[in-house]
Amino acid sequence: MINKITFAVDAMGGENAPKKVLDGIKIFHQNNKDVYYKIFGDSDLISKHIYEFIDKSFYEIIHTSNEVVDTDTALAAAKRGKDTSMWLAIESVKKKDSDIIISAGNTGALFVISKLNLKMIENIDKPALSGLWPNKNGMNVVLDLGANIECSEKNLVDFALMGSSLFKSLFPNDISKVALLNIGSEEIKGNEVIKNTYKKLTEIKNNNFKFSGYIEGNKIMDGDVNVIVTDGFTGNIALKTAEGTANFFIKELREVMSNNIIAKISSILNYKNISKFKEKLDPRLYNGAIFIGLDSPVVKSHGSTDSFGFSYSLNVCKKIVKGDLINKIKENII
Amino acid sequence: MINKITFAVDAMGGENAPKKVLDGIKIFHQNNKDVYYKIFGDSDLISKHIYEFIDKSFYEIIHTSNEVVDTDTALAAAKRGKDTSMWLAIESVKKKDSDIIISAGNTGALFVISKLNLKMIENIDKPALSGLWPNKNGMNVVLDLGANIECSEKNLVDFALMGSSLFKSLFPNDISKVALLNIGSEEIKGNEVIKNTYKKLTEIKNNNFKFSGYIEGNKIMDGDVNVIVTDGFTGNIALKTAEGTANFFIKELREVMSNNIIAKISSILNYKNISKFKEKLDPRLYNGAIFIGLDSPVVKSHGSTDSFGFSYSLNVCKKIVKGDLINKIKENII
Repeated sequence: MINKITFAVDAMGGENAPKKVLDGIKIFHQNNKDVYYKIFGDSDLISKHIYEFIDKSFYEIIHTSNEVVDTDTALAAAKRGKDTSMWLAIESVKKKDSDIIISAGNTGALFVISKLNLKMIENIDKPALSGLWPNKNGMNVVLDLGANIECSEKNLVDFALMGSSLFKSLFPNDISKVALLNIGSEEIKGNEVIKNTYKKLTEIKNNNFKFSGYIEGNKIMDGDVNVIVTDGFTGNIALKTAEGTANFFIKELREVMSNNIIAKISSILNYKNISKFKEKLDPRLYNGAIFIGLDSPVVKSHGSTDSFGFSYSLNVCKKIVKGDLINKIKENII
Repeated sequence: MINKITFAVDAMGGENAPKKVLDGIKIFHQNNKDVYYKIFGDSDLISKHIYEFIDKSFYEIIHTSNEVVDTDTALAAAKRGKDTSMWLAIESVKKKDSDIIISAGNTGALFVISKLNLKMIENIDKPALSGLWPNKNGMNVVLDLGANIECSEKNLVDFALMGSSLFKSLFPNDISKVALLNIGSEEIKGNEVIKNTYKKLTEIKNNNFKFSGYIEGNKIMDGDVNVIVTDGFTGNIALKTAEGTANFFIKELREVMSNNIIAKISSILNYKNISKFKEKLDPRLYNGAIFIGLDSPVVKSHGSTDSFGFSYSLNVCKKIVKGDLINKIKENII
């Protein structure tokens, strides 16, 4: 096991679990032989699939028949006890048996059970839910996406420092460029918290990120910055609105591309290009939210993503561990 | 002039003014012979174009050489005096010489000068900036889009009542279905203001709208509701994020549609369908924000829209006057 990274995998979370989770491991394992998996969940269901594609030296199954379900409130999930696959997986990083925990299960439950088990990084007041969002030149880290509805200046500054650390872990060759999400015209620009955060961020002397000032919603995807900071309410609305707009476009496009015979022929002719378009904007590539602020990294894969999407979240996990996220945050904060 | 609607038009606002504004009138006038225009601005520039396409019985020019410019702050714009084309146009509705005022000029200035000149509708505390946003089945009214950063429950309830009145003016055959913009999961749902607004809206007995509860950002374009209420900060971020996402998609699509010879051929073959797609999502169709809460309607056309976009805003103006927006709001509020 020397030099191997260890993932704690909650096999029972999300749609089509555990098959989706295991197929995700199968895809990821093909090109990543340096990862060892501690897989938590129903041993019968898991072993039925896994032996087909991965050698026993790469994994162990930690059996439990208890699991958090999607309809659980976070409180109900915590009350299910300490033997759910989610709880046990989180406990594995708490005990330092694993480097990172990943689940495609109930987001609220994962957040609450992680907070119950893991310590906050020193000098961070609130953990944040961060996500990846495509832009013209690559990828943005956006946070908070819904963990904290109301945020103080201190929280937003912490998010900037944590977000830039996350960006650096994921994209070590790029510079973190932080912007604060705000609204337009001079007259009506921002509230007091945002204005004070702006002031604090300009005062920070930190070589790990460049503060680029305010950004408006319509510039998020322009690629001029790559870490976008906002409170959880606004971030959640922005992310979901972008998702809704993207889905609307894809549906409308699909309709015009298939509503008559000429459209169909030209779409087939143009298949490769349309595929490229889809590939670049494939939401599975941006799948996976990361809780940061706790002393171990916690990754949430989308409940409804497929095995390819889950494998991409595993990719994010590996980058986070290799990029030494937690220490980067600690250095940035202190 | 009997039975004619009168528009007060600030001819000097926005890019390519006054030509863009006048060409907008030209397009709109072709199918709307029941509108009379009071056109405020530089008489020389205006008369050079207008005589070519519209009979003198349909308009008058009120000359002024002073105008608000885009770089003015709202305060500077107000200080420019009472003889700017924007101020005079607003004064025209104040004096009831016109039924509605439209400008493609400086938004902040238009908002502040309107507030200085026009009275609030009784029992409304704050006016709101509302806009149109496409959905699967037609169009949403969304408010506030940036006039009020922080909103009380009373403000949000007012926005619901005003927004449903606006929707009814624009789409008299449809039912206003109001939803409150909020974030996802049960555990972290909304702040106190939103929760209290929800409660108040469920208690309102009003035949003019149906309250449909909360809506998340990804459902805005689904068409299940048509009036979406939020504070100005969130609304502005959501609208701009949707714009940015749409632009990103269109650019990416354009790229894959023209980056090789097969793509070009199939795009030409599919020209009609792609045109239909573009038409339906043409941002000029959703151009035009409406300030509501004042005792006269004030319409803002986008500064960068073209003459077609401006003509569409004139269309919105006509619907608002015909739909008796101000009285609808008064009835809804009392």
